[in-house]
Amino acid sequence: MTDFTKTRAAFHLPDGMTYLDGNSLGPMPRAAADRVAAMMADEWSQMLITGWNKAGWYVQPRKVGDRIARLIGAGDGQVVMGDTLSIKVFQALSAALALRPDRRVILSDSGNFPSDLYVAEGIARALGATLRVVAPEAVEAAIGPDLAVLMLTEVDYRTGRRHDMPALTARAHEAGALAIWDLAHSAGAVDVDLLGADADFAVGCTYKYLNGGPGAPAFIWTHPRHAEVAEPILQGWMGHAAPFAFDQEYRPAPGIERMRVGTPPVIALSALEASLDIWDHVDMGALRARSIALTEAFIAGVEAQCPDLVLNSPRDPAMRGSQVGFCHPQGYAVMQALIAAGVVGDFRAPDVLRFGFAPLYNDLDDVSRAVEVLARILRDASWDQEEFHRKADVT
Amino acid sequence: MTDFTKTRAAFHLPDGMTYLDGNSLGPMPRAAADRVAAMMADEWSQMLITGWNKAGWYVQPRKVGDRIARLIGAGDGQVVMGDTLSIKVFQALSAALALRPDRRVILSDSGNFPSDLYVAEGIARALGATLRVVAPEAVEAAIGPDLAVLMLTEVDYRTGRRHDMPALTARAHEAGALAIWDLAHSAGAVDVDLLGADADFAVGCTYKYLNGGPGAPAFIWTHPRHAEVAEPILQGWMGHAAPFAFDQEYRPAPGIERMRVGTPPVIALSALEASLDIWDHVDMGALRARSIALTEAFIAGVEAQCPDLVLNSPRDPAMRGSQVGFCHPQGYAVMQALIAAGVVGDFRAPDVLRFGFAPLYNDLDDVSRAVEVLARILRDASWDQEEFHRKADVT
Repeated sequence: MTDFTKTRAAFHLPDGMTYLDGNSLGPMPRAAADRVAAMMADEWSQMLITGWNKAGWYVQPRKVGDRIARLIGAGDGQVVMGDTLSIKVFQALSAALALRPDRRVILSDSGNFPSDLYVAEGIARALGATLRVVAPEAVEAAIGPDLAVLMLTEVDYRTGRRHDMPALTARAHEAGALAIWDLAHSAGAVDVDLLGADADFAVGCTYKYLNGGPGAPAFIWTHPRHAEVAEPILQGWMGHAAPFAFDQEYRPAPGIERMRVGTPPVIALSALEASLDIWDHVDMGALRARSIALTEAFIAGVEAQCPDLVLNSPRDPAMRGSQVGFCHPQGYAVMQALIAAGVVGDFRAPDVLRFGFAPLYNDLDDVSRAVEVLARILRDASWDQEEFHRKADVT
Repeated sequence: MTDFTKTRAAFHLPDGMTYLDGNSLGPMPRAAADRVAAMMADEWSQMLITGWNKAGWYVQPRKVGDRIARLIGAGDGQVVMGDTLSIKVFQALSAALALRPDRRVILSDSGNFPSDLYVAEGIARALGATLRVVAPEAVEAAIGPDLAVLMLTEVDYRTGRRHDMPALTARAHEAGALAIWDLAHSAGAVDVDLLGADADFAVGCTYKYLNGGPGAPAFIWTHPRHAEVAEPILQGWMGHAAPFAFDQEYRPAPGIERMRVGTPPVIALSALEASLDIWDHVDMGALRARSIALTEAFIAGVEAQCPDLVLNSPRDPAMRGSQVGFCHPQGYAVMQALIAAGVVGDFRAPDVLRFGFAPLYNDLDDVSRAVEVLARILRDASWDQEEFHRKADVT
């Protein structure tokens, strides 16, 4: 059984702060600073160029990938790290389109993170494909025989609504299409099972629930049935079958290694390793149970004490990730007041108060405190909109 | 005048090592570990999500870019950081092709770094363009009226041969084409003048002469005449005109900002900042003079004392970067012996011993020591090929 008191103690959480924004940027593992300092002092500084072999920098993207694989229901050797999530979306989408050369339609939804849609729009323009964007609830009906790729973010960044990955993937496959899943708000938040869902490609970032630090590297997964045939457009030397042969022609590396592009971000990966030292001991079923307990308690508390707020997330926990949204017409001002009182969530236009619950370090005390402070702010009405807008401009 | 004794003292150079491989990975600035530790403790750990504004993470890619701009003859607001060099090559090349929609030929040379050629090959296949690769000396004659983009690395990674950037750019422009320059072996090594050469796009990495650490982020420069019209295929949210409006449609940010893609690598950028604190005080003319003095002394010393070695770099320093190559039939074994004796260069197949001279921290004592050790190794012939191959397999 996972000891969540212990995992909470492994993070630096500022005194007096209830941090419910780990779905934007996770807090720092206490061991991260030492891990990075050691990498710099013992590896970069002393080994210099030999660190690529001696310290294992060259194989680090795959070794770190293997540790993430367990958290998302993937197998060893199926995940590789590097670049940013937007770049990984580009790689997955361009590779998927190449696997369906007779089809040119990409389907996504308006709940997808905008950057995913921008990347898809860029690919569609370049390759002569069409991007269709429908409402999240209209996705299933929009899957038709012309579809090349279904590209969705599993958990909606504003509402926390969780798509049914196995069902939608199966629908896409029935229609002869491939399914790409963005796990930005899933990895480390819910019990993802990529192989169980029979997904085709998946991508995600590591600076949210996975606590890798600001701008931490992304990951990409390819189902084994595609790994040896996927053709990346982004052909970089680290994805070459023999990078140090310096051949003039590109030959993709075996399997997921071909999704590497340039030189891996070694310092950033060492910070992420400190977080994975914690994750290695976490049971994902226990994590999911705790996530549901936290979000259920928060919804119940807010609805009991804050009648002005309207739930903006699915009520059924099975259809929800690890975050909860509530709407309020003066949402921005309310969130500013909350942050000033030490309860950190965030605001998404036009009116959503968004609270992320990271089971690794958030607990029921965080929930109680957040509900209590939120109720007090709304009751006192001291969060006068003008005043908080003014304050927000200053800070 | 730049004080190179002081700049040398600013780096950690392992005791007893003569490091002539800064053209692969630069050594660590002494201040880098503290800078990164401070970023982690004071910014990530304490500010959490508010660091994007409070600590300036969001504007860091441009601010760091401005400091690099001075080193490569570019202006303020023209350079932005992020991703890897291969990704930046992709961005520059796809944007350049879009500016010449009636032409589909990309010209490069066999002296270009393989990853650049792989990226170009991937783009060519995806967009229906043609990549032509000729010998470095045949580039000028190969520029014809069908050319869309000339894409070259200024300084050859094996030979150190430096292309004439102003002349080749002018030839490309006369032919109606655009010119992209990869500065991987130029930035921090020679006196680059992008605006003076009237180049169109430039890209580079920061882990070589710029000492940003293993996998440090890349940079991209767009000439101001293209900055507002260049259309990136890699459309990421950080390159959007209003990233936090979360619009569903992409609108490119003004100028070079549109070349940003995903979330910037904040920890890695802070290590690079420690190096730029040194670079800020370096006069690039003085740097170039010192580079020439070092490489000239090395060539003269080796040719005087090592008659078996054949120079593999241009003899004219004006046509050379800050590295020198020599050929030897047992080059691999000789380099292993050199490294064992504390003189670190590297080997490039089939027979090249490559020595990088980083004017910021290498000095004439490094040159003397390298020549002396190299001469002794060749004279003693104790570097028996079999033996050193065996040693290399073990270490």
